Amino acid sequence: MRAATIRDGEVTVAEHADPEPAGGEILVAVRAAGLNGADLLQRRGKYPAPPGSPPDIPGLELAGVVAARGPDARRFDEGDRVMAIVGGGGQAELCLVHERGAMPVPEGLDWPQAGGAPEVFTTAHDALFTQAGLASGERLLVHGGAGGVGTAAVQLGRAAGARVTASVRNAGLRDEVERLGATAIDPENVEAHGPFDVILELVGAPNLATNLAALETGGRIAVIGVGAGAKAELNLMALMQKRGRIHGSTLRARPLEEKAAAMRLFERHVLPLLESGAAHVPVAASYPLEQVGEAYERFGAGGKLGKVVLEIDGSAG
Amino acid sequence: MRAATIRDGEVTVAEHADPEPAGGEILVAVRAAGLNGADLLQRRGKYPAPPGSPPDIPGLELAGVVAARGPDARRFDEGDRVMAIVGGGGQAELCLVHERGAMPVPEGLDWPQAGGAPEVFTTAHDALFTQAGLASGERLLVHGGAGGVGTAAVQLGRAAGARVTASVRNAGLRDEVERLGATAIDPENVEAHGPFDVILELVGAPNLATNLAALETGGRIAVIGVGAGAKAELNLMALMQKRGRIHGSTLRARPLEEKAAAMRLFERHVLPLLESGAAHVPVAASYPLEQVGEAYERFGAGGKLGKVVLEIDGSAG
Repeated sequence: MRAATIRDGEVTVAEHADPEPAGGEILVAVRAAGLNGADLLQRRGKYPAPPGSPPDIPGLELAGVVAARGPDARRFDEGDRVMAIVGGGGQAELCLVHERGAMPVPEGLDWPQAGGAPEVFTTAHDALFTQAGLASGERLLVHGGAGGVGTAAVQLGRAAGARVTASVRNAGLRDEVERLGATAIDPENVEAHGPFDVILELVGAPNLATNLAALETGGRIAVIGVGAGAKAELNLMALMQKRGRIHGSTLRARPLEEKAAAMRLFERHVLPLLESGAAHVPVAASYPLEQVGEAYERFGAGGKLGKVVLEIDGSAG
Repeated sequence: MRAATIRDGEVTVAEHADPEPAGGEILVAVRAAGLNGADLLQRRGKYPAPPGSPPDIPGLELAGVVAARGPDARRFDEGDRVMAIVGGGGQAELCLVHERGAMPVPEGLDWPQAGGAPEVFTTAHDALFTQAGLASGERLLVHGGAGGVGTAAVQLGRAAGARVTASVRNAGLRDEVERLGATAIDPENVEAHGPFDVILELVGAPNLATNLAALETGGRIAVIGVGAGAKAELNLMALMQKRGRIHGSTLRARPLEEKAAAMRLFERHVLPLLESGAAHVPVAASYPLEQVGEAYERFGAGGKLGKVVLEIDGSAG
């Protein structure tokens, strides 16, 4: 099979041996695979794949058709449309997925949307609800509201009855983010729009002090991205006075049972929204696998609404 | 009535008008009142009393006898032994308490223990269980394990089936902390004894980096004291990789309904331990009200096991 392949800090297409499903795994003929921040980090050698994932094939999410099943796999039949998060290896013609880590693709969701949905909606749902306990009526701030996770978080917050504000650096994207259900603001104006019960931090350390100042009593800050820097000064007395809490998390390093649990929550709480159209996956650009270099360049340049996705013609597709 | 009184950065005894209970308040003839870190901060002008509390009388906890009741107070009768947390004013012959913020004093608990129990056990219980979700089998580190909150936390953790480690700077107190149910260690050796699922931070900013390094995946840090400094560098990427969270909280600033809810949890989960002797209140020293200056000096000097308490002869005692 052919796959996006990291070599010497570049991503190109190379030939790999076809993987074969064992135990409860399914082999997916990939049709689309989203790009995520972790891919850029991995390309720079800063985020190695977890054990059990291909070390040199990036890609944390994919959608495609079940091409084969391991001897213990029961949840899907060959030919079923599935989407999944994986520890790596998604940006390839074929990808192994444990059946508990896969979900059905709702009718009406095309391949680019399906390939760009699992990682960002799972990440956003986990951070907003499982960690931060966002509830209806609360005020949510999404930092980086135009990106992949940001657009997912805005829609999930809105669907759950929260009042959503999104910081969007690129003024040209604010109208589109508002159409997703948020009040879109300049990141410089966060404090004037607070206080917030929950703040989803996708940018990093430079926002921490402002986040704490704009936090409502009892508020929660969920940090899931630090592209702009990881080290921040934290005023613990201010955190005590706000009776606040700060969460950090990543999905990628979690063991199968936790990823599977997150998938079940996705099926229960997110799939119905994607099926009904109450939420969708904005795809800013899609590229064929051959243009993976351009796709990474586009993703890294930022200033886009939603996802950058590779479209792939998996061999059994 | 006479009361400990803050004037120009000193605490002396002065005469105040007797307070009168209104609504659901009870008037308590105080028999003992513990000292807490917040009193020292307030003496230095750094922690003003919340609205509704006497601005110049310190004291966040007290025990005594109900001397009078407001027209809507129903929970206690005159003569009942009660203990309570208050926003301030506890170190006085008389103190107003909302009846929902008071609890019965168990038989067998003497006045100094009862006067030193409410704040530290409520603080420790709230931080360990309500916030950090400490569960049986988990590993708990209590930073500052010999102090008032520390000795309460060690005993509560032990009673709930956690494996408890306590950092104790004063080597001469470690044996006594071990008798409370913890492995007592030098604060310099925290990392060698980890990882920990829950870390109770009573010291402050200097410990944060070590705490994060010693945190188990999915671990929680509860910050409730910053005497050694409030501003710390936080590595958000490390927090993400640990999938950890950091809580901050204080009891004092909470509204009545939250304090009352904390009291009900105390009644359900802590009173039985104090009644059975599974937990007790180590009283390092007690002073009569007249020696309030010496009591504050002793409290501020540190190096003690448990509480410093004022014994007071409330007018109806």
